[in-house]
Amino acid sequence: MSKRSFASDNNAGVHPEMIEAIRAANDGHVVAYGDDPFTERAVKVFQKHFGKDIAVYFVFGGTGANVLGLKAMTNSYEAVVCAETAHINVDECGAPEKFAGCKLLSLRTPDGKLRVEQIKPLLHGVGFEHHVQPRVISVSQATEMGTVYTKNEFKTLARFAHDNNMLLHVDGARIANAVASLNANLKEITVDAGVDVLSFGGAKNGMMYGEAVVFFNQQLGENFKYIRKQGMHLPSKMRFISAQFEALLSGDLWRRSATHANRMARVLASELEKVPAIKLTQPVEANGVFAVIPEKHVEALQKKYFFYVWNEETSECRFMASFDTTEEDIKDFVALVRKIVK
Amino acid sequence: MSKRSFASDNNAGVHPEMIEAIRAANDGHVVAYGDDPFTERAVKVFQKHFGKDIAVYFVFGGTGANVLGLKAMTNSYEAVVCAETAHINVDECGAPEKFAGCKLLSLRTPDGKLRVEQIKPLLHGVGFEHHVQPRVISVSQATEMGTVYTKNEFKTLARFAHDNNMLLHVDGARIANAVASLNANLKEITVDAGVDVLSFGGAKNGMMYGEAVVFFNQQLGENFKYIRKQGMHLPSKMRFISAQFEALLSGDLWRRSATHANRMARVLASELEKVPAIKLTQPVEANGVFAVIPEKHVEALQKKYFFYVWNEETSECRFMASFDTTEEDIKDFVALVRKIVK
Amino acid sequence: MSKRSFASDNNAGVHPEMIEAIRAANDGHVVAYGDDPFTERAVKVFQKHFGKDIAVYFVFGGTGANVLGLKAMTNSYEAVVCAETAHINVDECGAPEKFAGCKLLSLRTPDGKLRVEQIKPLLHGVGFEHHVQPRVISVSQATEMGTVYTKNEFKTLARFAHDNNMLLHVDGARIANAVASLNANLKEITVDAGVDVLSFGGAKNGMMYGEAVVFFNQQLGENFKYIRKQGMHLPSKMRFISAQFEALLSGDLWRRSATHANRMARVLASELEKVPAIKLTQPVEANGVFAVIPEKHVEALQKKYFFYVWNEETSECRFMASFDTTEEDIKDFVALVRKIVK
Amino acid sequence: MSKRSFASDNNAGVHPEMIEAIRAANDGHVVAYGDDPFTERAVKVFQKHFGKDIAVYFVFGGTGANVLGLKAMTNSYEAVVCAETAHINVDECGAPEKFAGCKLLSLRTPDGKLRVEQIKPLLHGVGFEHHVQPRVISVSQATEMGTVYTKNEFKTLARFAHDNNMLLHVDGARIANAVASLNANLKEITVDAGVDVLSFGGAKNGMMYGEAVVFFNQQLGENFKYIRKQGMHLPSKMRFISAQFEALLSGDLWRRSATHANRMARVLASELEKVPAIKLTQPVEANGVFAVIPEKHVEALQKKYFFYVWNEETSECRFMASFDTTEEDIKDFVALVRKIVK
Repeated sequence: MSKRSFASDNNAGVHPEMIEAIRAANDGHVVAYGDDPFTERAVKVFQKHFGKDIAVYFVFGGTGANVLGLKAMTNSYEAVVCAETAHINVDECGAPEKFAGCKLLSLRTPDGKLRVEQIKPLLHGVGFEHHVQPRVISVSQATEMGTVYTKNEFKTLARFAHDNNMLLHVDGARIANAVASLNANLKEITVDAGVDVLSFGGAKNGMMYGEAVVFFNQQLGENFKYIRKQGMHLPSKMRFISAQFEALLSGDLWRRSATHANRMARVLASELEKVPAIKLTQPVEANGVFAVIPEKHVEALQKKYFFYVWNEETSECRFMASFDTTEEDIKDFVALVRKIVK
Repeated sequence: MSKRSFASDNNAGVHPEMIEAIRAANDGHVVAYGDDPFTERAVKVFQKHFGKDIAVYFVFGGTGANVLGLKAMTNSYEAVVCAETAHINVDECGAPEKFAGCKLLSLRTPDGKLRVEQIKPLLHGVGFEHHVQPRVISVSQATEMGTVYTKNEFKTLARFAHDNNMLLHVDGARIANAVASLNANLKEITVDAGVDVLSFGGAKNGMMYGEAVVFFNQQLGENFKYIRKQGMHLPSKMRFISAQFEALLSGDLWRRSATHANRMARVLASELEKVPAIKLTQPVEANGVFAVIPEKHVEALQKKYFFYVWNEETSECRFMASFDTTEEDIKDFVALVRKIVK
Repeated sequence: MSKRSFASDNNAGVHPEMIEAIRAANDGHVVAYGDDPFTERAVKVFQKHFGKDIAVYFVFGGTGANVLGLKAMTNSYEAVVCAETAHINVDECGAPEKFAGCKLLSLRTPDGKLRVEQIKPLLHGVGFEHHVQPRVISVSQATEMGTVYTKNEFKTLARFAHDNNMLLHVDGARIANAVASLNANLKEITVDAGVDVLSFGGAKNGMMYGEAVVFFNQQLGENFKYIRKQGMHLPSKMRFISAQFEALLSGDLWRRSATHANRMARVLASELEKVPAIKLTQPVEANGVFAVIPEKHVEALQKKYFFYVWNEETSECRFMASFDTTEEDIKDFVALVRKIVK
Repeated sequence: MSKRSFASDNNAGVHPEMIEAIRAANDGHVVAYGDDPFTERAVKVFQKHFGKDIAVYFVFGGTGANVLGLKAMTNSYEAVVCAETAHINVDECGAPEKFAGCKLLSLRTPDGKLRVEQIKPLLHGVGFEHHVQPRVISVSQATEMGTVYTKNEFKTLARFAHDNNMLLHVDGARIANAVASLNANLKEITVDAGVDVLSFGGAKNGMMYGEAVVFFNQQLGENFKYIRKQGMHLPSKMRFISAQFEALLSGDLWRRSATHANRMARVLASELEKVPAIKLTQPVEANGVFAVIPEKHVEALQKKYFFYVWNEETSECRFMASFDTTEEDIKDFVALVRKIVK
């Protein structure tokens, strides 16, 4: 068996309940591309969580969910405001610019969270044709820095967005971790907080593949089926994504897995914190731990446990817990850390 | 259980050996995005079939495989020559134009197969900046009309392409059906016949999801990893695609499934042919059957068995066999046809 | 002095009244990018011709006018229906596909004119996400084949378009020639006939540079200023385009020039018709003459007078008259033709 | 006559010698799109300045020159490094992202000038497919802040670029002002300093319209004619741009005009500097003056003389001199400033 690492929550495999759901869905023929009973049921499960007035579309993966969602929200001369650390800004190889044609206006943040005050100056160019027109505020929840926006923070951003003819987009690759962290339900920190469009993550919470684009503003999703197809993200055997989403969301699997991963991150953080040479750099609000590991020890550690150096200048490293992380895994890893980092 | 139809080979489920491969791969953590032992093994299996000098990349689906492959072969001012019936021309919602930026020059064909003679006139504009510059000949193998190019037909197209500074691209969503039909091996009708880039299909031959872009001209694939990521087709949990490809290609599963589907199509065709009011419109060389069904009977039939009307003007319909089609399925369907179409 | 040829109406220079207008506008400073009195006046002149309810934007050239106009009318998953011979289809190096992202659906026509009957079958895919969605009918007036749509033909196309949630776009690179040919005014064969967006040509009717995108459906033009800038077609010293348009349109210069060019084309045609080996292929309704010249004589003729072979297969050639063509020019050219083509 | 302002160098009209050149070129017919003797001569004049081994292409305007030049230098998954204040970053409405598909990585600078040290950290992601790949360093010369790179600064940037598989692009909308300021010739601070591609500005130095894209690395320009046409920037009546360039560059008009504008900027700066409430923010190295004007006085001043507030947060304003600015203009303007800003 491959050893479990802390490199990323997508280094984990698939939750056994998902595998079972896939197996159960593998029965006879159904119409391809989503016109099937599995997808119908999965959509209903989304409606149960988010309310009836949504439009939900399944795509293959997270970059697709983000980029195609943004494409539905923008014209090419408009801009998406995001944190400098946002996945769409640094980890999608320019896909938003390429496919939506629009520009990202990225803002420096200490903790991965955008604030209204820093967005305001971007409005100076509104109406001036030489400048891209800010149209979307895109935030990650949980953020790429392992922090979580509160419901009120979302409300403030949404109000500002809507007051200024803008929209609020959420990259929810780790939305379950955020909701679990806030001890909330899915609806209250999304549609109720003013979010317009959500990328609902699957793969980082135990799915094999598949993400959802959820439109709370249904008009924005009106033509999304064409965008999804032109965006190369219409799965032919859709039922296998739908079956996973049904398994994830019909009960509490989504929350169980996320809560567990969050707890494992806190345990890992509290252990790392005890090592004098290591400094945590962010509060642990979801399933990620950020810590400065002395540069000279990084390579030795990575040889045994693969993980990412987040910031080469400061030797800040990232450790992610996942649904299948065990206390044993942490104990083993921390033992090694203690051995290497004196 | 859902009844098996003849609507499309992607209405079928997943071959049980694939499900088993997925289950076996679901073990512990591996690095995401393809740097894992499953992917390493799957690449080797591709090399076993196609030779060492290939570059192979896995993507989520067929439209992605086609469009991203073409993007790697073209500049935006260049053009892709294809049949009017090509999937890239009619069934990808303009994705090639959107993502590669290039124009498709489509040519009318009776049987879905391009011929050199019809491509020649497109070269009049070479070097003239007002016109897009033909750069790729893209063919489907098997074609969307259920026909199959012979090895010599490919060689003729490839020679013409290379003599004119062009490249040969193959949409191989049904490459296994074509190879099985030709009683050939994969190498001789692709790289040996002069093909430069191949979309290798999985979903229409029993996989859950996943296609491969195979570069026989390795230079063309040099930067494909960036194109794949920017093209939103880099799967995070790659191993589950890789494991399916290994299962498909390490033994003869790919050929078994395709041969069976082809045979079922021939059986279906021979039965339909016996119905006087029905006229086959294409030779049955792969797993598709094309037949004119009198327009007045189409709706009644579709109520029981979903299938696509291929040409509304002529009432030509398409029936596809798949790896799991049984003789019983055909008998039932044909009985219904006989009842409805007198 | 360079000899006047019949190669193209854009091989001509600039009408002296334009040069004078430019000289007169070259006086002191004005705000760049169109916020100047010259542009204000030019817009008013357009309103005088087309009515108050228009939005008009000046761009550098004709390809820009067409492509950016179409971009304003489409989403990338939509399609533009046009004649196979349309400038947007064959002479803009794929610019519409590249910038608007959309697909062109081109239809074969004997005379460059689209008819409703041939567009109808394209509607079969409406609502089906695999297919691009027809959104615009784009016609050229006068056509690239020197023919002219009547007002009723436009009305029929417009009614069909609007009945099917589509729009009518006119590439009016030679709109003045068409209007002069129809003995109409500008309004009755555009906005009154149901046209939604018009590329209003300048360069082929005596301007140095500059075309206008005219929106009769103002909502479509709402954000055009951003599209123009992002489309790289916002001229900084706008006043020099505006001054030319004012000169062209405030009096009858536009009609004088076009009427003259049309007449010269008819004279040329009637002379060529007398040469037994030459066959006219199109009615001469605007300023272009299309004729089959025996292939063996083409090169000899081109050595003295540059012109374009329109169809290499049939040796059909194109001859264009312009505002400055003289009867003397025609006499000289025809004398040469008679000498070479016996 | 419209009063001359200090709003922008493109608020000026056209230098009379250009008007004369245009008038002289308006003689008979020549082949359109650049195959004419005027363009041939203009290209030779560029070669006289920059050496024989260049490829030079004329386009309509500056945004086109920048964006199409960058398109020729990049693949869509690559990135362009530039100053946060760069015209391509803030004043082209996202055109580079839209047309080249690539991402801009912008860096904060105090004076509009990039330095190697700040570019280095961007190389951490090289080879990592999740990140755009830095491919071009694009600098403005003179910068948007009125400063000028020295020859050595260019050499340092070029060496760094070439050592790291990158290219150096120069937005030379005001290249003449920079060269005049450096008391250099055009060649030594471009091709000799390692520049790969230059946007050579015309409109800001007295031309009516027209810019040139100059490739010192000819291979990069190999297919530029197609990019220009697809980029909607192939002027049909090219000769009128060519004639202006010939007039600008065959003698010393380019340097005379730029030197004058630069001198006028210095005079203006020295006068503004004497007003106690006004603070210059940048050294005056070209034809721009940047100064903080107390916010309460800005509106009153703008009523009489239009100019741009460059930074709304700090009330920094920009004043540009042009080829036609007179000492009288400055005296009048400064008198007003003195009256309003006490």
